[in-house]
Amino acid sequence: MKYLCVEPGCSMNTTVNRRSRLVYMDHAATTPVRPEVVEEMLPCFTERFGNPSSVYALAREARVTLEKARRQVADAIGANPKEIYFTSGGTEADNWAIKGVAAANRKKGDHIITSAIEHHAVIHTCQSLEKQGYRVTYLPVDEFGRVDPASVEEAITDKTILVSVMTANNEIGTIQPVAEIAKVAHDHGVPFHTDAVQAIGAIPIDVDNMGIDLLSLSGHKFGGPKGTGALYIRDKTRIGTFMDGGAQERGRRAGTENVPGIVGLGKAIELAVAEMPEKSPRLAAMRDRLIKGILETIPETRLNGHPTERLPNNVNVAFRYVEGESILLMLDALGIAASTGSACTSASLEPSHVLVACGLPHEEAHGSLRLTLGSRNTEEDVDYVLEVLPRVIERLRRMSPLSPERYA
Amino acid sequence: MKYLCVEPGCSMNTTVNRRSRLVYMDHAATTPVRPEVVEEMLPCFTERFGNPSSVYALAREARVTLEKARRQVADAIGANPKEIYFTSGGTEADNWAIKGVAAANRKKGDHIITSAIEHHAVIHTCQSLEKQGYRVTYLPVDEFGRVDPASVEEAITDKTILVSVMTANNEIGTIQPVAEIAKVAHDHGVPFHTDAVQAIGAIPIDVDNMGIDLLSLSGHKFGGPKGTGALYIRDKTRIGTFMDGGAQERGRRAGTENVPGIVGLGKAIELAVAEMPEKSPRLAAMRDRLIKGILETIPETRLNGHPTERLPNNVNVAFRYVEGESILLMLDALGIAASTGSACTSASLEPSHVLVACGLPHEEAHGSLRLTLGSRNTEEDVDYVLEVLPRVIERLRRMSPLSPERYA
Repeated sequence: MKYLCVEPGCSMNTTVNRRSRLVYMDHAATTPVRPEVVEEMLPCFTERFGNPSSVYALAREARVTLEKARRQVADAIGANPKEIYFTSGGTEADNWAIKGVAAANRKKGDHIITSAIEHHAVIHTCQSLEKQGYRVTYLPVDEFGRVDPASVEEAITDKTILVSVMTANNEIGTIQPVAEIAKVAHDHGVPFHTDAVQAIGAIPIDVDNMGIDLLSLSGHKFGGPKGTGALYIRDKTRIGTFMDGGAQERGRRAGTENVPGIVGLGKAIELAVAEMPEKSPRLAAMRDRLIKGILETIPETRLNGHPTERLPNNVNVAFRYVEGESILLMLDALGIAASTGSACTSASLEPSHVLVACGLPHEEAHGSLRLTLGSRNTEEDVDYVLEVLPRVIERLRRMSPLSPERYA
Repeated sequence: MKYLCVEPGCSMNTTVNRRSRLVYMDHAATTPVRPEVVEEMLPCFTERFGNPSSVYALAREARVTLEKARRQVADAIGANPKEIYFTSGGTEADNWAIKGVAAANRKKGDHIITSAIEHHAVIHTCQSLEKQGYRVTYLPVDEFGRVDPASVEEAITDKTILVSVMTANNEIGTIQPVAEIAKVAHDHGVPFHTDAVQAIGAIPIDVDNMGIDLLSLSGHKFGGPKGTGALYIRDKTRIGTFMDGGAQERGRRAGTENVPGIVGLGKAIELAVAEMPEKSPRLAAMRDRLIKGILETIPETRLNGHPTERLPNNVNVAFRYVEGESILLMLDALGIAASTGSACTSASLEPSHVLVACGLPHEEAHGSLRLTLGSRNTEEDVDYVLEVLPRVIERLRRMSPLSPERYA
């Protein structure tokens, strides 16, 4: 693959000093588990391995451990521990929230309101309900990816049983006016769900202040293990079960509890929320330096997402005349791990539904790059990306048949 | 709790030498994760932490790791790797198998056949489908907990879309005539699902020889981590999705893959199946010594489950005039971890649906004890249980208002 510029004699290879360390800038896809979290989990695999549903000391110990983690998760979002239900991740939490509310409220109504830029865990779940006869409104967003609370007001009917709008978008980082949207839903007696998978540990979340009735979160997005998550269910919210079976999680989510994973989730969310006041401004400064540097040095480039109402760690830019996939391959060869958008859809050739909803033409949606920062990223990482990226884009534009002559 | 007999001066305390080490005999509830398994998992938390859906070296590494585990699981049950789908556990696999087949075949029919002694992950899933208008036949079992293949033949109609019968029962250890039942289903063009959660690593499983179209398994039952499992789906089986969202698992099971967990599952199943020829006969000998010892030394006691068609590690006995819960508490105080039946239902006061289906009167179903062996158990553990248990039962019978005068 000569176009990757790692061949000897390639001009790019000779002008860029490849770094020995990986520059990982895909924290929205997943994060490494923090060592403190692994340390908490370890004894639960081999020694404190009891099934929390059993009746002996080893099992009681596991129950105590679970309840500690439940309190850690509850404290992180201003909830009561008895409103926290552990799941296998954000996707299960989204499936449960939406399908569970739909099933439990079928007699009341058949209409769900969500946005056009939700994660596929929400959109595909809604589509599967449409096949069962439910009706779904996918609210449009403005060019920055924001949902207008007035559009919720317009869409809501007496058959609406759920409004689900994400707290912050996973691709473009846009933060939604969740409290205002929740208020519109509540004014009509409709419960409000939010996928907060990207928001936890990045911006403050308080389920009471924000009027959230159901909230999905995922451990591996903030230094916890993959395969863990939780659904917050406000007391008295009508919702059916999703996973049927044993009486775990007070009869609402069956299956032996993933004790080590849950312990890791609890520890990770506690750390993430405690460190947020220091970390978020630090990442936001790096984010802003990246955005400014990219827009200033690379022509025909635009920022995707909102300029200010944006996750502190998210950079998403569209480059005309280039293909996102090619950018990633060249960056990979240069030791930079990045993404075009959602990791969950990278295998598909479709342009990002988020960028299309924001009004980007298909070819620009295809030429977008997402860089998402994490605590281990340094100013030197930012320097390196700002050194490498303009050359990568220039080179790709020289090769692209779509490019105008000036790039030849 | 003076009746636990751990008080100084209690006659039981003075005659039984409590062992310093825990005698864990509840391996059907959960098993410790094997050290070799934890070792394989560890690098996936902190270093090889990539999201398999991403596009860079770290992610490709994760995909390779996933596919290795998929082959390990496939090899363990005689399947093709592309027929293995990772889940969050046995409960999810059961929910997906049954709800997925039901949804995909709704136009063909609305009837499901299962047995009265399935795990709640199957029974409660079927009950939830009944609420949606499906019809379910719960086949009876004989006194040993066996399903008669002829009863499947009688129950099957042209509206039957699934037959689901477990490979081996989690409470009484009875092994079902799975191949015969599958044959009946196939003769009528109906797919066959089996919950093999308790069978993996205990008895040989071959999906082709046994005619299995869908099979559920769970990592933490054979030395793997909690929160992991898999559903085997034979190629061309009509089944819908259960978890909607991203394109993971070839578009059939959304959600970021639990890479460390899946790696652990793969390693654990490989070890469990490799060691089975040595381990199963060894556990079966201990099992038989336990059963013989208990039945010989404790009067008014009977074996639950089948005398020979039985999991090599399962002992389940009913004691008249005593309460299972009280046996467990006394055994716990004496350093023995056991169970009355399914851990998943231990919080409920209902008698075991399995024992009731086998024809046990409620009071005997309430007085049952399950001991399930694992590789770490020794002959000394068996000696200790055989020393302690007769005294525990005698003491409880002396205290029980239900006991006849001879126990006073």
